[in-house]
Amino acid sequence: MSATAEITNESKSESKWVNGVNVTALAATLGAIGEQPALGRFQFRARNRWIGGARNSSTIKGFYGAGREDATRRDAYVFDADEPPVLLGEDKGANPVEYLLHALAACMTTTMVYHAASRGIEIDAVESSFEGDIDIRGFTGLSNDVPKGYQRIRVTFRVKTGGDAGVLTELVRMSPVYNSVCGSVPIDLTVETH
Amino acid sequence: MSATAEITNESKSESKWVNGVNVTALAATLGAIGEQPALGRFQFRARNRWIGGARNSSTIKGFYGAGREDATRRDAYVFDADEPPVLLGEDKGANPVEYLLHALAACMTTTMVYHAASRGIEIDAVESSFEGDIDIRGFTGLSNDVPKGYQRIRVTFRVKTGGDAGVLTELVRMSPVYNSVCGSVPIDLTVETH
Repeated sequence: MSATAEITNESKSESKWVNGVNVTALAATLGAIGEQPALGRFQFRARNRWIGGARNSSTIKGFYGAGREDATRRDAYVFDADEPPVLLGEDKGANPVEYLLHALAACMTTTMVYHAASRGIEIDAVESSFEGDIDIRGFTGLSNDVPKGYQRIRVTFRVKTGGDAGVLTELVRMSPVYNSVCGSVPIDLTVETH
Repeated sequence: MSATAEITNESKSESKWVNGVNVTALAATLGAIGEQPALGRFQFRARNRWIGGARNSSTIKGFYGAGREDATRRDAYVFDADEPPVLLGEDKGANPVEYLLHALAACMTTTMVYHAASRGIEIDAVESSFEGDIDIRGFTGLSNDVPKGYQRIRVTFRVKTGGDAGVLTELVRMSPVYNSVCGSVPIDLTVETH
């Protein structure tokens, strides 16, 4: 956390790194949030524009966190979504439920790596695979008994480490996207027409 | 659905299109799934590899659906994730919770467009914005009372259409990612070490 780094005057050369994570800065960050809980509040954002049919594009740039609006990110990230032909698209991008699996994979991986680093558990390699089952009778409205979202997601991690698999499993379960998907997030929805 | 298109011998020139969606093929797809519910079953997949620190990369290619393994997608989609400096990364990619907002945005947009097309509701333009609140005291373990995932997500759509905003709101709520996030998806997690 840059604010924290300024406060504690940590320089990179003096920091301890585990798993590619600056655990000196991580500890300082945790200390700063412990003292000022409001520093823990973040808001992330995306804007999306429909292109046509199954194609649309999201732009991601600004966010708020650690008590300030971010000023470090210069370029926006842009992601295009589409559907494959079997779902009546042109496959010009991954589809939305595939992006969800990526979000889950990325978050669970980073969560494992950060929390392991914080505990001094060294990790040499992480690979993972994700499978999500969905029955589009739910989405299409053909059946009211079938969930509209994923019915189940299977996740398998293969980790090269001297650490304990049970401990790593508990660390992975701290993941924000994991908890957003296996728990319930309230979504406020407004649709305006013009 | 290509299998359906083969069965019904629809050619593109004979099809009716609404919102860039082939509604003739869409109706045929719904009819085919209605007759053979197993055609509604899909499985999407992602593989992820850790690069170091907050950086990791997902590869998305194969999927199963409509009774067969997909054979149309030739190239994989690859997405890199990172964290911004305030979260101890190098900002070489959007972060996982930002990707979740993109997945949500893309899915809700496509869901609105498809279901509106199916009902003959013409849409000229769709833009949307997404804000997700998260307090990293949950993720970090600094507080057990704070959710680890998003606390709340606000979604605003602006749609250029003659259609009714209330009807569009109900259509958007059919979205698989929306339902995966505001509902609960069981996740089977296995961590293997070597």
